[in-house]
Amino acid sequence: MRAAFLYGAGDVRVDHVAEPTILEPTDAVVRIVRACVCGSDLHRYHDLPASGTGRPMGHELIGVVEEVGRDVATVRKGDFVISPFAISDNTCAFCRDGFQTACVNVHFFGAGDVGGAQAEAVRIPLADGTLVKPGITLEDADEAMLASLLTLSDVFLTGHHAAHMAGVAPGRTVTVIGDGAVGLSAVLASKRLGAERIVLMGRHRARTDLGVEFGATDVVAERGAEGVAAVLELTGGEGSHVVIEAVGHMPAYEQAYGVVRPGGSISRVGVPQYELAPVGWGSLFGKNAILSGGPAPVRAYIEEVLPDVLEGRIDPGRVFDRTLPLDDVAEGYRLMDSREALKVMLTV
Amino acid sequence: MRAAFLYGAGDVRVDHVAEPTILEPTDAVVRIVRACVCGSDLHRYHDLPASGTGRPMGHELIGVVEEVGRDVATVRKGDFVISPFAISDNTCAFCRDGFQTACVNVHFFGAGDVGGAQAEAVRIPLADGTLVKPGITLEDADEAMLASLLTLSDVFLTGHHAAHMAGVAPGRTVTVIGDGAVGLSAVLASKRLGAERIVLMGRHRARTDLGVEFGATDVVAERGAEGVAAVLELTGGEGSHVVIEAVGHMPAYEQAYGVVRPGGSISRVGVPQYELAPVGWGSLFGKNAILSGGPAPVRAYIEEVLPDVLEGRIDPGRVFDRTLPLDDVAEGYRLMDSREALKVMLTV
Repeated sequence: MRAAFLYGAGDVRVDHVAEPTILEPTDAVVRIVRACVCGSDLHRYHDLPASGTGRPMGHELIGVVEEVGRDVATVRKGDFVISPFAISDNTCAFCRDGFQTACVNVHFFGAGDVGGAQAEAVRIPLADGTLVKPGITLEDADEAMLASLLTLSDVFLTGHHAAHMAGVAPGRTVTVIGDGAVGLSAVLASKRLGAERIVLMGRHRARTDLGVEFGATDVVAERGAEGVAAVLELTGGEGSHVVIEAVGHMPAYEQAYGVVRPGGSISRVGVPQYELAPVGWGSLFGKNAILSGGPAPVRAYIEEVLPDVLEGRIDPGRVFDRTLPLDDVAEGYRLMDSREALKVMLTV
Repeated sequence: MRAAFLYGAGDVRVDHVAEPTILEPTDAVVRIVRACVCGSDLHRYHDLPASGTGRPMGHELIGVVEEVGRDVATVRKGDFVISPFAISDNTCAFCRDGFQTACVNVHFFGAGDVGGAQAEAVRIPLADGTLVKPGITLEDADEAMLASLLTLSDVFLTGHHAAHMAGVAPGRTVTVIGDGAVGLSAVLASKRLGAERIVLMGRHRARTDLGVEFGATDVVAERGAEGVAAVLELTGGEGSHVVIEAVGHMPAYEQAYGVVRPGGSISRVGVPQYELAPVGWGSLFGKNAILSGGPAPVRAYIEEVLPDVLEGRIDPGRVFDRTLPLDDVAEGYRLMDSREALKVMLTV
């Protein structure tokens, strides 16, 4: 089968490799219908040292079960499924808490003996804990529905996780920093959770326009101190109850504590590209600001959000503005890296 | 009247100064009955440069109203009152959110034209917003009750704030780092909020013994990696739902993220003596750990906690292990600094 591998910065190739097979009785093999490129894939696309061994890429997918191990009970051959980007048993203490990304048996795509999801098929360990049947057949899903279901594998529910962790609720003012696919998903998730006002900080007009369609009530293009001043002015000097930081770089973190209201919440879902950050009196402590966020336990949220997708109340798949065949995955990376595309879907 | 001033590191003196008077129609003057020395006073006691001008000290007090401005409606001459350590209007947006330490009109003792509370009397601006009548007369309160009421000015409710912000609730495991008066208060507050298991990290036996009486189920004397390993072992490898960091130094912060459970909460109430701290994948983000805490909005909690104090269900005043007259306040600082005393109450 064909699968995408990264051989070094900027060097994505589609190779022919062996089909995945059942290795454990709890495995499933899923034939992939749609996959995509994630903003987090671009970190490696920038900095992976060149190597003769390719790294399997991709961790977002919807597909059809092709084969299951003898202990798999909840899915069978032919089922249309969504796979969260983190593979979990969904039974351990952390899974029961709703933090499946910390599952004691967690697996990630492209690591160990699990392949990447930018491929024709992939082995999914712990299939019962991981895969979710959306309650619709592949045949009944149109292109827009496929795109929206694919976002439940990661990007929309990453935005939802940020909003959920920060306590977005009716009456709240939310500021979203970053107009990438995760930031726009956070806007839509905040709207869905009833936020009264949603300020989107971003400067790419096509993206912030989609943010407005998703529910942003205000757009702030300024950054740094000017951006902070603009949000404070919009909020009557009080700041934002919730700030969702969907970038991952220090200037975005600094904006976050600049605009958060005393007693408010900052939630981060851009993987932080820093380890040390201000947390003392002048940033978080003096304001009693709360800092949350981390890798989204997508598995915890799928059932709650699915009805809104299936019944058309939200259309998170609109973050995909390009669709390419798997063979053109390298072009997909290039388009996202150059910001020509917001998020690229792959047909397989 | 007499009042305590700090003239430089280690140099506390009692001076004779003018009695406070009403300056604004919203002021009260309160004659102080009991005051105390706070762990945070010791920071200045360590590092204040010597000066010919003394700095007024103290911010915790109970007392009797001596005079009120013409606009004060809720207290009058003769009322027995508790004063939170932060003076607030209790009407602004942040006060209504329950974050009176961020009041737009906040005042602090010993700053501007407000004196310190280690004194015979003090002017309290915004008396209606700040002072709380405990529903008991001075004459009806015995020594133990006075001590417990005094803790509602700061120390017990600072422990409560940490527990509240981190979501302590029945069934939760809480780890408290630090066996000072705030740490022990956090143990008692966690017990009051229904924590199932409370691990106290501290190595001063007399203090951890009081912690056990307050509700600690386990005591861990080890620090650093050994301390983290001990707490993880006590929690079956899972870590603690809630970690209350009541020290304020980096090693305590590092212990906090070491022992917190994935998806758990770290709450800080030791004023951080650092600005930068680890918050990335290897500390908070990877675990989805939440970081909260800040100066306690004591005013928000007094009414809720008072009945438990008045009816004897909790006795937070036990953190005071020495009582000295105001004239001996310098000895009080010395005893706390040398750790001979846990917390010193002052009679006035």
